[in-house]
This record gives sequence, structure tokens and C-alpha cells, in this order.
Amino acid sequence: MKTVLTVACGLVLVSAAMAAEWSTSPEGGAAFTADGKLKYPEKYREWVYLSSGLDMSYSDRAMGHSMFDNVFVEPFAYREFLRTGTWPDGTQLALEVRAASEKGSINKHGKFQTEEVMGMEVHVKDVRRFQGGWAFFNFRDAGAAQMIPTTEECYSCHQQHAAVDTTFVQFYPTLLPIATLKGTLSPGYKP
Amino acid sequence: MKTVLTVACGLVLVSAAMAAEWSTSPEGGAAFTADGKLKYPEKYREWVYLSSGLDMSYSDRAMGHSMFDNVFVEPFAYREFLRTGTWPDGTQLALEVRAASEKGSINKHGKFQTEEVMGMEVHVKDVRRFQGGWAFFNFRDAGAAQMIPTTEECYSCHQQHAAVDTTFVQFYPTLLPIATLKGTLSPGYKP
Repeated sequence: MKTVLTVACGLVLVSAAMAAEWSTSPEGGAAFTADGKLKYPEKYREWVYLSSGLDMSYSDRAMGHSMFDNVFVEPFAYREFLRTGTWPDGTQLALEVRAASEKGSINKHGKFQTEEVMGMEVHVKDVRRFQGGWAFFNFRDAGAAQMIPTTEECYSCHQQHAAVDTTFVQFYPTLLPIATLKGTLSPGYKP
Repeated sequence: MKTVLTVACGLVLVSAAMAAEWSTSPEGGAAFTADGKLKYPEKYREWVYLSSGLDMSYSDRAMGHSMFDNVFVEPFAYREFLRTGTWPDGTQLALEVRAASEKGSINKHGKFQTEEVMGMEVHVKDVRRFQGGWAFFNFRDAGAAQMIPTTEECYSCHQQHAAVDTTFVQFYPTLLPIATLKGTLSPGYKP
């Protein structure tokens, strides 16, 4: 599943129940366990939505199944991006992948999202903790997730192709104009 | 464009700049002008995201162009839905329609959203103001919008087919399980 790299890489099947759980944990920056795992961001569906794609792939191969990806960011990081055109330390971008369906209820054309969550990954900025400032985490369930090793291609791909600070702002339509205006596009970014 | 009825009907072309404007107006229920128009919900992109679809159509005709629809709801109404399984008075559901694109930046397959906002509609619950409790508004720009007449088919379609309180909760995957659990599905709703 490494062909899907919208925010991160290596999506896995997880329970749909995962996304339906809510807690009262406070927002405001990534939280880690004592052994460096990222805690599951239980409130991510209440974060600020950035965009969705359908069946996006950065490789030449198309996927064998259909799915939406939804990207969310914590409100404090979003507001800081609006102000500065880039991400503050502690930013978390959550990528949720949901199965796409069609011809359900009264819908006759096109696709809609279902309760089946197929993957959940988080891209975290912490300049003291991570070499390069950012790390990816892949949640297999609602527990804590280990960091994806920096040898994985998600890191080099984001480094080479991302519009702003190794994040794919080119696919976040409300933020790209702000980064352009603020002059925070990466020097090597090609639209 | 009446074939696209995810939340409302009658989408129109509007400026992409509309969605990029932000204000400090407070959230918390629909706001109207003295002559009954709905004020533009400037902060809707910071509301809680419910779901997206691609090229959804409830008629037998497919559309001639490709677009995503994104649905947002104010946080207070979302939290009340989590608690009760239905919408409180003052609820606003915003439907934003964005042009879909493909083969941009490093994306080789699938579709992503662009800066071109093709429509913006709001579904408002106000039991004292509207016969049936709800009304649709279609924004042609970031000004105030007049109510869509109740003779338009969006009203009868939502009345007949919506899962919860005339809203298409069947397409909001985090909310449908809650409505099912709370027993708030409409009596005539067929999955």
C-alpha cells in the first residue's frame, strides 16, 4: 500500500470502531509515551479539515480498490499557518483513509465515504525530537504508534515534492494561496 | 445543477476567493439579516467536517464535470448530535463544492480538490422561523443568501430520503452509527 502517500506511507487495515471513539483528552500538540510512541489523537475528527482525495497515487500503478483520504490538522496549527504560511512546532497532520462506496441509499452516481476506516497516519513536527523536524506514525489501532523509520520513502518523497515544510500543501486548497502569499513555498517545489 | 442534492440544491458558480476569506465573527447558530436572509458563515472551514463525496448524483443523469462536495457543521451542533443523535435548533450544515482535478504535482492517479469553489449551500434548522423546521440557502457570493423556496425539490427529497431529521446522515460515516444507537433514524429511512 506504499502507493498511497498523501501524507505518509504504509497504510494498514484498522477497525472502523477506532474513529468512533472519543475522549476528553486536551488538544494542542502531539503527545508521546515514555518510550517515544505517538499517542492516538482521539479528537482528530474535530480538528480543522484540510482536504480529501479519491484514489490518489504517486506511483504509476493505480490501486485495486477505491478509497477517500481525509486530512485534518489541529486548530492551533491551522491558525498559525493562516498567520505565517507555515507550521508551528507540535503540528500534527492526520490522514484518515476510508473505503469509498457507490449506489447506496438514493445515490446513483459518484462515490461517498463509508464507516470502514482503512488507515490512519499522522505526520508530526517536533524539531527537537526528530531529525529533519518531522516524523510519520502509522496507527494500526487506537493505541500508541511507533515512528516509521526515516529510511522509508515517505520521508524522501515529502522532502523532494512537498510544497511547504515537507507537507503536501499543494493538495490543501485553502492553504496553498496563503503559502504563496506569505512566500513560504519550498525552493524546490514545482506546481 | 439540481442533480446534485447532497445537502441542498441549485449549486452556482462562485469565486474561489470566497472560501479564502476569514473573519472573527462568533460561531454558534445561524445569523440572519433583518429581512430574513442567512448571513454567510465565514468560518465554515473551521467547523467540524462530516464527509466528502465525489460526483454524487441522486438522479439517473451523471454530471458533465467532476467535483467534490465537503460537508461541515458547527461544533456546538456536532457535539449535541454525538450526545442525542439528532440536531439542535440553530444547526447549520454547510455544503461546499470544489472542482476535482487529477494528474497535478506528483499525483498520477485519482482525484484531488482545487481552489475553484463551485458552490456553497447551507441547510439551517430553526423551528420557529421555518415551516418544517429547516430551510436551504444558496450562496452566490460571500453576502447574505435568500431562502430557497419550499416548492423546490430539495425539500421533498430530504423529507423522503434523509436518515435523520431531513439531513443525509446516511452519508456521514461518523454520525450514522450514533443515530442508529440512539434510535433517531427517521421512520421511513431505507439504508
